[in-house]
Amino acid sequence: MRKPILLTPGPTQVPEEVLIAAAMPIMHHRTPQFEAIFAEATKNLKYLFQTENPIMILTSSGTGALESSVINLCSTGDKVIAVNGGKFGERWTDLCKVYKLDLVEIKIPWNRTVKPEEIQKAINDNPGVKAIFTTLSETSSGGVTDIEAIAKITKNTDIVLVVDAVSGLGVTPLYTDKWGVDVVVSGSQKGFMLPPGLAFVALNKKAEKLMESSTLPKYYFSWKKALKSAAKNSTPWTPAISVIVQLDVALKLMKEEGLENIFARHHHLSNAIRAGVKALGLELYNQDTGDCCIAVDIPDGVDGSKFVKVARDKYNVTMAGGQAELKGKIFRISAMGNVGPNDVILGITTIERTLKELGYSFENGKGISAAIEVLDR
Amino acid sequence: MRKPILLTPGPTQVPEEVLIAAAMPIMHHRTPQFEAIFAEATKNLKYLFQTENPIMILTSSGTGALESSVINLCSTGDKVIAVNGGKFGERWTDLCKVYKLDLVEIKIPWNRTVKPEEIQKAINDNPGVKAIFTTLSETSSGGVTDIEAIAKITKNTDIVLVVDAVSGLGVTPLYTDKWGVDVVVSGSQKGFMLPPGLAFVALNKKAEKLMESSTLPKYYFSWKKALKSAAKNSTPWTPAISVIVQLDVALKLMKEEGLENIFARHHHLSNAIRAGVKALGLELYNQDTGDCCIAVDIPDGVDGSKFVKVARDKYNVTMAGGQAELKGKIFRISAMGNVGPNDVILGITTIERTLKELGYSFENGKGISAAIEVLDR
Repeated sequence: MRKPILLTPGPTQVPEEVLIAAAMPIMHHRTPQFEAIFAEATKNLKYLFQTENPIMILTSSGTGALESSVINLCSTGDKVIAVNGGKFGERWTDLCKVYKLDLVEIKIPWNRTVKPEEIQKAINDNPGVKAIFTTLSETSSGGVTDIEAIAKITKNTDIVLVVDAVSGLGVTPLYTDKWGVDVVVSGSQKGFMLPPGLAFVALNKKAEKLMESSTLPKYYFSWKKALKSAAKNSTPWTPAISVIVQLDVALKLMKEEGLENIFARHHHLSNAIRAGVKALGLELYNQDTGDCCIAVDIPDGVDGSKFVKVARDKYNVTMAGGQAELKGKIFRISAMGNVGPNDVILGITTIERTLKELGYSFENGKGISAAIEVLDR
Repeated sequence: MRKPILLTPGPTQVPEEVLIAAAMPIMHHRTPQFEAIFAEATKNLKYLFQTENPIMILTSSGTGALESSVINLCSTGDKVIAVNGGKFGERWTDLCKVYKLDLVEIKIPWNRTVKPEEIQKAINDNPGVKAIFTTLSETSSGGVTDIEAIAKITKNTDIVLVVDAVSGLGVTPLYTDKWGVDVVVSGSQKGFMLPPGLAFVALNKKAEKLMESSTLPKYYFSWKKALKSAAKNSTPWTPAISVIVQLDVALKLMKEEGLENIFARHHHLSNAIRAGVKALGLELYNQDTGDCCIAVDIPDGVDGSKFVKVARDKYNVTMAGGQAELKGKIFRISAMGNVGPNDVILGITTIERTLKELGYSFENGKGISAAIEVLDR
């Protein structure tokens, strides 16, 4: 009786109502029946993205949608800024290099996020920038960037601000239209509480204008084709039908809970996690830690490479380790998506039990007491 | 109590065992537990593809995998041949144009498939061809191409033969290694009996060699990255986890039935469909009709635009209409995937009832009698 608990920063746990929707007989996608589901999902996506602009549904992982932003907005040699402060920021810079853009890279340490003044300086130093590629929640490090402040800088310019919100949307505030974010990219397997397989892109008129001038080749990820189909509640290619049916169910649950309540829940649960690990004497890795993914330093004397394995295989709670330069140095725990107080409690008890097994000494139950105190507030 | 029946050439009906697998709690993809499923699925994919070479699992529709073939094998200006005999052949030529290849297009009427001698002539007339893009089963028209004969032409040359087998694999014979096909592309929503969302690419050493010289830009669809990950039972990006779990179940069912039995079943059921429609005085659209999708001419005096709607909304059987130039002129019915004799019977009775409602006169029950006679053989 394993009853596994998933507290990774994606994929996240899928609610039963959403799981079971995938077990219904498959529908054909070129039918009024499916188009009605697609239309309802699109309406609720606009609520979640806080936008009145079109949203495209792509069948791919979030990385495919990131690539779609580069190839649909840019042309070879275009001057762009990309913020690289972790594994996912690096993905933006990799993409810009593959497509031979004139890249201004803002490289920042993994343990903080980019400051608005660094963006402003890069713009001032590099006239002619067409787009800025940023990351809302850097899953590799736990940092959440102040997108509102960055959007204030780009809002009244011709620069298109593109935000990778794969792991932040529906978790932490992002008011696309109100803040003036031009392109928001997301994916199904984090805040959406869905299996991976779908990605989403919202874009405004300013971004559409830049898209019109883009000359990079594209086909499967063509936004023009996707926008044309989206207007008819469809996709240019056969979509991941079962995940779209699940999307419709998940979005209804999210609308019912309400966006502000969802943000508050993630903040509350993340507060409890932070309190729990701090009470154990652990330190947060990122000085800009948000409510999407909490990266925690592996304490001295503990074999970090064993942490995730022991927690998962002995205590049935799956968390994530560090990636790339942080391998063995941090673990990551997340309350994203379909997570409640009892999941957090099991997360903290598992951290305690695992650290104990790996030789870390602390006062038994101190972490869980601190977490529960926050949960009960 | 609608109990809908799906007899379209994709998506196809998903078996209950496969449907329910998507309702299990989501697994994390970077775990030994998931890697074991991935490894088992890959092993069974090789059986289905009849290859010993690597197979990549992509999260996209089949079109994404077609595009991946063009961008991973070719460089700008490369001379290639593409066969355009329908909507999916046209997709190859569209892709070749987007990526500025030196395209030799073999354009053939939709109601037949390409002849090996047409391929041979195109090769002779155009020295230096690097790749040939063809379609096993042209879903838009029902034609199945003689890939074995074409592979005989390319086998001992440097030309890489790429076959779009999205709708043919696991339905009609395709012996990748034995025939010497260099690249085979497929998708999850046809013979695999799965929801859409996954695509597959098998490639041999000859294709890998051409891949090494390709300079077109790619990232999400990079075969080099996918091959590197596949060797470790993984994918470079978060895959459609739930569909891969379903893939593992579906492939076990297919292995249990056995490839030769699967081909025989599709041939038997398709024979029954062909006999049924012919007995009603209808004609097959394609002179090279195979066992994947049977395209039938809408008879004179019948409003073809209404056929699919009446069949689906009144009789609960979903078939497909014609696409592009064939809109309103044909309907398409398919026994691909999870289809048995009773599905075929309901397909034929629905064709009878629908045609009757649309004013076509025939001897009642003649189609169904002919179909049952074949089924009972």
